[in-house]
Amino acid sequence: MKIAVIGTGLTKFGELWSKGLNDLLAEAQLSALKEANIEANQIEEIFTGNMCAGEFSGQLHVGAMASENLNLNVPSTRVEGACASGSIAIRNAIQLIESGKAKIVMANGVEKMTDVSTPQATSGLMGAGSEEWEEFQGATFPGLYAMMARAYMHKFSVPKEVLAMVAVKNHKHGTMNPKAQFRREITVEQALNATMVADPLTLLDCSPISDGAGSIILASEETAKELGLDPVFIVASSQASDSLALHSRKNLYSTYAAKVAAEKAYKQAGISAKDINVAEVHDCFTIAEIMAIEALGFAELGKARELIEANETYYNGAKPINTSGGLKAAGHPIGATGLKQAIEIVHQLKGEAGERQVKNAEIGLTHNVGGTGATVVVNVFKR
Amino acid sequence: MKIAVIGTGLTKFGELWSKGLNDLLAEAQLSALKEANIEANQIEEIFTGNMCAGEFSGQLHVGAMASENLNLNVPSTRVEGACASGSIAIRNAIQLIESGKAKIVMANGVEKMTDVSTPQATSGLMGAGSEEWEEFQGATFPGLYAMMARAYMHKFSVPKEVLAMVAVKNHKHGTMNPKAQFRREITVEQALNATMVADPLTLLDCSPISDGAGSIILASEETAKELGLDPVFIVASSQASDSLALHSRKNLYSTYAAKVAAEKAYKQAGISAKDINVAEVHDCFTIAEIMAIEALGFAELGKARELIEANETYYNGAKPINTSGGLKAAGHPIGATGLKQAIEIVHQLKGEAGERQVKNAEIGLTHNVGGTGATVVVNVFKR
Repeated sequence: MKIAVIGTGLTKFGELWSKGLNDLLAEAQLSALKEANIEANQIEEIFTGNMCAGEFSGQLHVGAMASENLNLNVPSTRVEGACASGSIAIRNAIQLIESGKAKIVMANGVEKMTDVSTPQATSGLMGAGSEEWEEFQGATFPGLYAMMARAYMHKFSVPKEVLAMVAVKNHKHGTMNPKAQFRREITVEQALNATMVADPLTLLDCSPISDGAGSIILASEETAKELGLDPVFIVASSQASDSLALHSRKNLYSTYAAKVAAEKAYKQAGISAKDINVAEVHDCFTIAEIMAIEALGFAELGKARELIEANETYYNGAKPINTSGGLKAAGHPIGATGLKQAIEIVHQLKGEAGERQVKNAEIGLTHNVGGTGATVVVNVFKR
Repeated sequence: MKIAVIGTGLTKFGELWSKGLNDLLAEAQLSALKEANIEANQIEEIFTGNMCAGEFSGQLHVGAMASENLNLNVPSTRVEGACASGSIAIRNAIQLIESGKAKIVMANGVEKMTDVSTPQATSGLMGAGSEEWEEFQGATFPGLYAMMARAYMHKFSVPKEVLAMVAVKNHKHGTMNPKAQFRREITVEQALNATMVADPLTLLDCSPISDGAGSIILASEETAKELGLDPVFIVASSQASDSLALHSRKNLYSTYAAKVAAEKAYKQAGISAKDINVAEVHDCFTIAEIMAIEALGFAELGKARELIEANETYYNGAKPINTSGGLKAAGHPIGATGLKQAIEIVHQLKGEAGERQVKNAEIGLTHNVGGTGATVVVNVFKR
């Protein structure tokens, strides 16, 4: 499998008061078209990842918006798998090209979150968990991840400082990414002493509420050749599921669906975890990055701290993770996150990541999670 | 293209007070599995159409629910294109099988609408239109379709009685469908004199608020053979888009995306409109069935009344339409509607439609619309 990424577009992430849902989506789509240097009518189908536009903007049917932005009548579908929606859009675009039914397909992701109050946002986001077993009982996402963090810290005797170090590293990376929502460094002490959100997670363990959109245009290998391009390729794309509610999982200190998805992706790509030169993982909370490192096989279960404490997950370390700043510092406009991850990896593999460039990056990976791990998509990219 | 339908499951449609979102979904999924006579772990991927669970039940991430119901870790995605969501799930399942990546795929549709008040439902449903240009200005779906009805009636000098006759026919069909929400006949006089909703549409021109779910299991032709089955096949599947808001359309008296989708589907299947023996079309309002008849090429523009007035769209007429009772009488649990349409056609082609059986039905079609026509999916089935 070899699917070419022939164009990318990404808005700034942040509190973008002057831009609505469709402003963001259109901006990303038009940037991707411009970069691909193709006409809109060469796009044969569109998939758009979005989670909360219904709840936050009264707008469903975002697919029709995406095709109208390009003045097209082609099939255009919204896909949703909570916070993994963006990567699902990419995966569906890949599958369509593999079916032979289309040669050039656009995948978008968009989220406009700052038009509602924080309690409204927190409540809307709980739609990613189980309404019956979690939301109705009063659980919030920080609360659910706090339970996972407690279980992990207890099981493997990991101190809170390790979680804080993830936030510090991602904020450092954010300073080097012009599109990031937060572009200032923080210290371990600041992270530990920030306002408590859900013990043990402080404000600086949590990704923010953000606005943003991303778009990539994918093409078959043959089409990319015909267009005279030397693109980055997606060489594996896999998705896996687990129980919607946390209480039905095998355990609280690891994410099984991520392990399943990663193993399938490595097999598809004919590589192993050690071959990954740069990865964007789903750090909605700091604990999630730690669990991702282990699920993806970059460290053994309970051992992610060794990589983190040795600073190996910085952009200039042995296993660079979240060079974009991750969800923590770059921001987390839900549907757009998977697109941002993919675009960061494309930039890294093309050597276009500026200050935060990883040296000799040949193979990259994205890991995008829905809910507390009920949906996971892993995509592998190769120069 | 030949994709086999190897199992179907459909709940009763109606006000199902004792059943929640997941009860409905699980019931349909398990019925389909039982009919297919396969094990759950033979399902390789799942697509589920749903529009409003976020707004009406606080539940997004319905894909994870669908895989958990079968105790599977396979990829499971929610797709949404407003009221066309169910047929989009079917189409994505087809595309996946065509890609060669999976042999057996499940497509579901579910909607739980009666747990919210009618104003909440009306407001949530407006997410299928344009929030910016329609909902925010106070438009409702009956209001938008009323404008289309007025434009059509004016352009082609069609009296309101023709709209009423569509409702009368679909209610007649509903009496013969045990799964239908409404199972009583109505008269043209009753339809004309019912409470006005949005002039010229009365209550009996409008489909109801409903609960329900449907599920079908699709397989490659080869797999169906290996399983020793003699199934109904899907021989074409197409989708098209138009502007989200009504004011940007070419005109208000026809649905362009439906025409585009139908033409593509006929071409794919190597047939023409006259070859269709039975069709389920999207009669969210009576005027929508009239426009569907014309967009699908069963009658020329402005001439659908001839078929209707000659009673040719009854189950025993020359062009049977909505033998299930349509959205009007069978009910319209949004995400489930496309599944119900497909399952009705499968039953008709298998000769299992009981009282409402169409004689010698060989080729059937479904036409599923999102919003006022911004998304349309047309699937063609063959015995």
